[in-house]
Amino acid sequence: MELEFVDWLRQNIPPHPLLRLGPGDDAAILQTAGRLDSVVTADMLADGVHFHLSSDTPERIGHKALAVNLSDLAAMAAIPRSCVVSMFLPRAGAGELGRQLFRGIVDLAVDFDVAIAGGDTNCWDGPLTIGITAIGELSKHGPWERKGAKVGDVMVVTGELGGSILGKHLDVCPRVREALHLNQRFDVHAAIDISDGLSLDAWRLAEASELGVELDLNCVPISDAAVALAQQDGKTAVQHAISDGEDFELLLAVPPDQIEVLLQDDSLEISCTAVGRCIARPGLWYRDEEGSCHISTPGGYRHD
Amino acid sequence: MELEFVDWLRQNIPPHPLLRLGPGDDAAILQTAGRLDSVVTADMLADGVHFHLSSDTPERIGHKALAVNLSDLAAMAAIPRSCVVSMFLPRAGAGELGRQLFRGIVDLAVDFDVAIAGGDTNCWDGPLTIGITAIGELSKHGPWERKGAKVGDVMVVTGELGGSILGKHLDVCPRVREALHLNQRFDVHAAIDISDGLSLDAWRLAEASELGVELDLNCVPISDAAVALAQQDGKTAVQHAISDGEDFELLLAVPPDQIEVLLQDDSLEISCTAVGRCIARPGLWYRDEEGSCHISTPGGYRHD
Repeated sequence: MELEFVDWLRQNIPPHPLLRLGPGDDAAILQTAGRLDSVVTADMLADGVHFHLSSDTPERIGHKALAVNLSDLAAMAAIPRSCVVSMFLPRAGAGELGRQLFRGIVDLAVDFDVAIAGGDTNCWDGPLTIGITAIGELSKHGPWERKGAKVGDVMVVTGELGGSILGKHLDVCPRVREALHLNQRFDVHAAIDISDGLSLDAWRLAEASELGVELDLNCVPISDAAVALAQQDGKTAVQHAISDGEDFELLLAVPPDQIEVLLQDDSLEISCTAVGRCIARPGLWYRDEEGSCHISTPGGYRHD
Repeated sequence: MELEFVDWLRQNIPPHPLLRLGPGDDAAILQTAGRLDSVVTADMLADGVHFHLSSDTPERIGHKALAVNLSDLAAMAAIPRSCVVSMFLPRAGAGELGRQLFRGIVDLAVDFDVAIAGGDTNCWDGPLTIGITAIGELSKHGPWERKGAKVGDVMVVTGELGGSILGKHLDVCPRVREALHLNQRFDVHAAIDISDGLSLDAWRLAEASELGVELDLNCVPISDAAVALAQQDGKTAVQHAISDGEDFELLLAVPPDQIEVLLQDDSLEISCTAVGRCIARPGLWYRDEEGSCHISTPGGYRHD
């Protein structure tokens, strides 16, 4: 199907000023000369693991496949510039499925001004698999990394957490604009996107920064979906909020002298909430009204 | 498996001066500032389609997954700089398989001075799937594209063609050094890598350049593997040479005033052979001792 599909892509993938040469040749040429360093990330999603083609629309799946990559760029405070898309499509109805997936990808790419540079499309007898590599550009304010948090930093999350399985895990809104806004105005010390649950990703940031993190369970912003899910199963809403995967919110380590201004910044469309702090004792700690306890194995969602 | 695997990658992926930030964070940072434009390509391979895990070693499969991408960069006369690697590994024995695959990838990456910037590794119940995105840098002599060939240009191939299924399709030697050498010394008008057979890829180059190509069947360099394969099946060796897929040699459109010097250039380690010419009549034409005939549907290997 490559020939027809490339024809379709040529007609349906929007042109972009960064694309000196777009899809259809052996490779694409991106205008990166004269720009800052590149930031690159890749995620590969598959049917039955990250989405369910039987119940999720292809447009939402395509959206998710790009959005999770943009979320990684947001966690670096990088500006998304381009992406390449590879797919294995189930043979039956491959062409139509490919076009629907690309509609979801293109809509989000246009929304974030991302050039679709090309990729690779194959058919097979296996399940739908989509791999996207996103390439961003460093912000002039510098990158955020997982390392760099300091003892005393306040841990801040964007949005509300938990229950993404009820829909948000597909309709991911990558916090790119929020990241660039915060990167410009504040001296954030470290950042990660919450892809595997607040607990596990807070632990990862703590490990990379060689310190500990104490989460205040009473402060975690709980989504309506986490509450709804708690009503269906035996877990509490806060358990969902700290351990469900695929929130794709940002977790930031903010110096204490900047936290007040950041939390009162009403130019963001999304809420920011202080959920804990960086401490000298290594590891992950939960604090509630009964005190602080060490968590040896942070709960979180791992696809494997 | 992500945590352990990332640990292993950190220890086993060679550092590289272009990697400002390597694997292990939300994204990698590549030093592209101060350089020429980027060239980007992606290929996704799967068990049962592009290789057979039951009979091919993981090291060769990993090698192939990167090599086919470097071949695409070679076809643009771009200098390979970095890559990101995504995988879905079958659950049983995933860790060991992942490490073996990476050994093949790392060996080739070191050979071509390519930084491995990171990627994404998952397990699942499906077949092994590997997607690699390779990022190169434009040569200062400019890119080759599929378009740009002119009537009268001589079509030149590197190496020998056909029968790659007997082994070369795994042990791909991407013609990066040859491409950069030829790009520096000659005014090549257009280029493509032969991934789906000489006929089909010559036709693609002709289409992109809005002209025709006439292949001289008596001149096509036939590999020993094509001869061996012909002895096993009913096809001729030349049929294998013009239509077998995955040669990963280069097909170049060379101006006639440069062809003599190019063919006598003995600083290349690989042979170059004139196999035809660009003509005004559109489409693909085969010439032999009986004359020239139009080929309406170029034979070639398409995975789909």
